[in-house]
Amino acid sequence: MAYSLAIHGGAGTMSRAQLTPEKELLYHKALENALKVGEDYLINGGSALDAVEFTVRYLENVDLFNAGKGSVFGNDGKHEMEASIMCGRTLNAGAVAGIKNVKNPIQLARTIMVESEYVYLHGIGAENFAKNYHIPFEDDFYFFTQERFNQLNAIRDSDKVILDHTDVDYKFGTVGAVALDKLGNLASATSTGGLTNKKYGRLGDSSIIGAGTYANNATCAISCTGYGEYFIRSVVAHDISCLMEYKNMSLQEASEVVVKDKLVKMGGEGGIIGVDKNGNISLTFNTEGMYRGYTSEKNPKLVTKIF
Amino acid sequence: MAYSLAIHGGAGTMSRAQLTPEKELLYHKALENALKVGEDYLINGGSALDAVEFTVRYLENVDLFNAGKGSVFGNDGKHEMEASIMCGRTLNAGAVAGIKNVKNPIQLARTIMVESEYVYLHGIGAENFAKNYHIPFEDDFYFFTQERFNQLNAIRDSDKVILDHTDVDYKFGTVGAVALDKLGNLASATSTGGLTNKKYGRLGDSSIIGAGTYANNATCAISCTGYGEYFIRSVVAHDISCLMEYKNMSLQEASEVVVKDKLVKMGGEGGIIGVDKNGNISLTFNTEGMYRGYTSEKNPKLVTKIF
Repeated sequence: MAYSLAIHGGAGTMSRAQLTPEKELLYHKALENALKVGEDYLINGGSALDAVEFTVRYLENVDLFNAGKGSVFGNDGKHEMEASIMCGRTLNAGAVAGIKNVKNPIQLARTIMVESEYVYLHGIGAENFAKNYHIPFEDDFYFFTQERFNQLNAIRDSDKVILDHTDVDYKFGTVGAVALDKLGNLASATSTGGLTNKKYGRLGDSSIIGAGTYANNATCAISCTGYGEYFIRSVVAHDISCLMEYKNMSLQEASEVVVKDKLVKMGGEGGIIGVDKNGNISLTFNTEGMYRGYTSEKNPKLVTKIF
Repeated sequence: MAYSLAIHGGAGTMSRAQLTPEKELLYHKALENALKVGEDYLINGGSALDAVEFTVRYLENVDLFNAGKGSVFGNDGKHEMEASIMCGRTLNAGAVAGIKNVKNPIQLARTIMVESEYVYLHGIGAENFAKNYHIPFEDDFYFFTQERFNQLNAIRDSDKVILDHTDVDYKFGTVGAVALDKLGNLASATSTGGLTNKKYGRLGDSSIIGAGTYANNATCAISCTGYGEYFIRSVVAHDISCLMEYKNMSLQEASEVVVKDKLVKMGGEGGIIGVDKNGNISLTFNTEGMYRGYTSEKNPKLVTKIF
């Protein structure tokens, strides 16, 4: 098989006016570097699982995206993160939600998948699991970014979690990667810091297998970014897979039905990235933009786009 | 439309030898009473949502089942519960995970669905939400049952969470209800206390929309009980709905493909209850037994079964 890789860094209503040329360049550069990380695994015969884990780890370590280091602040001034990963060959999965101070939530999700009899861990219990497996932690200062802190302070005393604002980062910040490796195996990974000013231990779709993340060698690997509540109710990632498996749609057709028809009718803004078992890539969104990139063995150019 | 209602109280390897006639009678009586609660709403034109919520509340209040009052003990000696509910008409949903001392987790899930902009809450944040909405709490003593405590002590110092034991309650204790009301609306609700001796904030499928709970007026309402990790990875409830919607299978055909073929091949033990948009009922499991019951306007007898 020829490998394929696609990534996203969140979708939403973006304003060209707000995104300075300098900042736009930073985003393109970060997406390109992330693609290089994943591509390196895939070129050298690495697994799709390794490619998506380490690509997402890279995106978690950049403070431009709402995941890992760049996670937004919850209402309590803390960073509560979620992540999940799935293997299309075995349908094994690992997911983690409501964790604080874990440097790379996707690494924890992978470790849960591999080392635990469980699939889905949350909160302090998940952090204890992480400590037992020597997953790196960082202090609050590591996750502090002035811009995110300003975003919280602008709405902290209100009940708002989502501003009617042109900055995407208030909205659907998430990172994700999907890959097909040379052995024909698919994998998907998603990670997020959730919503600015979120309360009550809110969880989104990024840690939910079927909603934000799904992979199945019979069909495709999908990672989502969007208004999590709608993505949960629509079981988005699994729905795309089912349309392919049960209605013989192509990845692109299935993605468009779910993202541009079903989600739009509900009011669910966001997008998906997907790779199918033949290496075809879909980057489909119903918002103004989505930070995204892709590359493949057939077209080895590293393509990154925002709008 | 003519109403339909089905319920479950968990599935697993049951031993007739262990279930004394007296205890068997208690289970049948509890299932029958739960059916009466839901039927009462449906007969009087109540909504499927009310029917499933209050039926599950009844099952949560009986200490025979692993949910609410009868929840098993986690490794820390506490009862950490999950629940979810979904409306087939609006595709609205509410879900809650990792909560302690909430008397009726399904009531909290419904309140999240109705009152919150979120779908899925967990942990202390979810408990704070519950307090704001005056959801009743109970102290640890309310959730204490000697039998459950003995189950924990038998395995607490081991790493086991699931005993190779003939008592179902070690395994897949869950309660659930699905209903079609006279207006043709479907709803589904699921609640559990999880696994005895569970660690690390483990979550199962019962709080996951798509996995343990799904409802869609276009197809069916499903509530699952089984080995949660397999049900998450298989997105069981949504898969049954997709087989109906995209492959034109009947509820019973779709349930058998998922429960008796796909899950069996993976090793995922458990079962499902479902009602379709025409009021047909499915109670399908790949285990020795499933505590279950059903009734409908067309066949108003209250039927309860274990094996």
